[in-house]
Amino acid sequence: MLPEEHFRLLKTPNGARAGELNTPHGTVLTPVFLPVGSQATVKTLTPQDIKDAGFNMVLANTYHLYLRPGIDVIDKMGGLHRFMAWNGAMLTDSGGYQVFSLAPLCKITDDGVTFRSHIDGSEHFLTPELAVQYQEALGADVMMVLDECTAYGDSQEKVQKAMDRTHRWAERCLKAQKRKDQALYAIVQGGMFPELRRQSTEYLTALDFPGYAIGGLSVGEPKETTFAMVEETSAWLPVDRPRYLMGVGSPEDIVEGVARGIDIFDSALPTRVARNGALFTGKGRINIRRAAYRKMDGPPDPDCDCSTCRTFSAAYLSHLFRSDELLALRLATVHNLRFISNLMQELRESILDGTFAAFRKDFLSSYKTTNEQVRVEQKGRWLRGRE
Amino acid sequence: MLPEEHFRLLKTPNGARAGELNTPHGTVLTPVFLPVGSQATVKTLTPQDIKDAGFNMVLANTYHLYLRPGIDVIDKMGGLHRFMAWNGAMLTDSGGYQVFSLAPLCKITDDGVTFRSHIDGSEHFLTPELAVQYQEALGADVMMVLDECTAYGDSQEKVQKAMDRTHRWAERCLKAQKRKDQALYAIVQGGMFPELRRQSTEYLTALDFPGYAIGGLSVGEPKETTFAMVEETSAWLPVDRPRYLMGVGSPEDIVEGVARGIDIFDSALPTRVARNGALFTGKGRINIRRAAYRKMDGPPDPDCDCSTCRTFSAAYLSHLFRSDELLALRLATVHNLRFISNLMQELRESILDGTFAAFRKDFLSSYKTTNEQVRVEQKGRWLRGRE
Repeated sequence: MLPEEHFRLLKTPNGARAGELNTPHGTVLTPVFLPVGSQATVKTLTPQDIKDAGFNMVLANTYHLYLRPGIDVIDKMGGLHRFMAWNGAMLTDSGGYQVFSLAPLCKITDDGVTFRSHIDGSEHFLTPELAVQYQEALGADVMMVLDECTAYGDSQEKVQKAMDRTHRWAERCLKAQKRKDQALYAIVQGGMFPELRRQSTEYLTALDFPGYAIGGLSVGEPKETTFAMVEETSAWLPVDRPRYLMGVGSPEDIVEGVARGIDIFDSALPTRVARNGALFTGKGRINIRRAAYRKMDGPPDPDCDCSTCRTFSAAYLSHLFRSDELLALRLATVHNLRFISNLMQELRESILDGTFAAFRKDFLSSYKTTNEQVRVEQKGRWLRGRE
Repeated sequence: MLPEEHFRLLKTPNGARAGELNTPHGTVLTPVFLPVGSQATVKTLTPQDIKDAGFNMVLANTYHLYLRPGIDVIDKMGGLHRFMAWNGAMLTDSGGYQVFSLAPLCKITDDGVTFRSHIDGSEHFLTPELAVQYQEALGADVMMVLDECTAYGDSQEKVQKAMDRTHRWAERCLKAQKRKDQALYAIVQGGMFPELRRQSTEYLTALDFPGYAIGGLSVGEPKETTFAMVEETSAWLPVDRPRYLMGVGSPEDIVEGVARGIDIFDSALPTRVARNGALFTGKGRINIRRAAYRKMDGPPDPDCDCSTCRTFSAAYLSHLFRSDELLALRLATVHNLRFISNLMQELRESILDGTFAAFRKDFLSSYKTTNEQVRVEQKGRWLRGRE
């Protein structure tokens, strides 16, 4: 599939974009949010649940699947789509981020990265070529290059060194690619340094990837910095290629990302906070465990059309959470994902009919993240983006 | 509803019985197994999942619901059916068993039982009248009397004393009943003493309940003793009333119970062992975590028609368990319950067409509980029956 066939841009009023991604597993309307299925499962949900919530593209993690059950197992089972019984579109992350955030890091050289498994401590070696080879075996519709991630607060020198290596690795990934039915995306790095972001974007754009991700954000920096870096990067990205903001996915951040021209989002946040009892509503996040919901007849979110809100009361969901019942986690996950898919659809429609600016203003003024909930979100900041 | 309308016996060849329970929430074919939903949820499943697995009657526990969310909350929400969004038939246990097995017991007198919550240690008082009042508020189709449970190994004197109290409490429950659309079942006690079992059955039968449970079994005694007591009790029960063997529900025990004229079973075993990775198959129980399943393409149980076996491979389910994924618990629960509902249907059909004896022999000779799995089952023997 040629890059120009992979993505079609339909409209770009004031920066916000509506388009479509064409993949061997169907067309995905953008802007799109990808539920995170690190270990070949979006936690608590079946593939049918994911579709029912309104999604036809998910993300899985090469790092997790390499360690468990092993790329060989999934390859033998006919690839990741078949293994997890998902026939929609799929993106796999290269494993770079997880190696740097989850695994005790051993050594990084130009060749690749040596790391220890966070599960059993065993030593492994990952190279750009292996990252592509593994992702080709997994068979996702979109693959990511192996990148070197830096932390918030790292010096410009350190960030530049990692960025330069990320660029060299991106070229090696491109060369290593054998299958042509998968789109390989580059990842722009450069930390919180606008000049490095510009350099990284220019370098990678020259290599002509079918898509570009913005990496290394949402790692603890203030929100303004995140979006300043997004703007800095977007300005240099080619208009006709999809733009993927990695690890960002709260409702308010999605709206702000879309306003800055982002087409693709992923984040474990909606599903993770759901498992803590935090539900998205049009008025902000609520904590369903609170006493106020104990006797509340009527759905958790009266404006929601998800199967949870259509079937159960706030009182029942509150009871399940208070009683540590497993069903609570699933019902809340379904709700938060449905909230996000409805949001994506509304965003897209507002872009297409020219009302995005008003939608953005209305949404952000009514959607307030309550203080009691921010606590949930900020647990493990470094990990908050990508499980 | 008159007792004779509640149960209709269709056939009784050689002890095994096929019939139907008529309830305000539908007709339930017997022999029947009730999935256990102690806290107003069959762990990991929605009401739709339970129906899809083939069940139209479930069990819930008054003890658990009294403590959380509180009978008042469920009453306010319009009863337990509406609270948990279950429109099928339902049986509630009185709380007697849980008070004696889960809660630190304070004091028992003829008046009732004082106990402490196993959740927060608060003190509570339960009487036969309150047990009925709570169950009327919950609104299940079948209620159970409050009984005094004894442990395996208790002296005949102690068991007799508890049995006599259980009889007095049964009379008080009968008198306390106000709603007439709910069937109140008595519970036969008498421990492992045949003479006491006979006395208990005769005493309670004279009170003319619409159904009779056999309680105080599967509490650690050998299997032969369990079924000897079932036989001892069944011999004295009226033929035209349903017989409920409480807390028994492994596939092999169900077959043996049906052979002895049992109509109703409940047990947390099928769902609990599922969450440990133990799946029922026609050849016995398998441990899906085992290395043998890591690369096994094809369903966990090739003979099963459940949504898990129709959708996912043994390798995928094994991966989910090995990776501590929540979806594993749900997929295995669906499978084990479907196995049981298929078994109940086969048992019923074999009774109706006169082939039960052959079915029993075939099933028990091919179904072997492997040693590695028995371990899972025997954790917490006292609790194994009723969660």
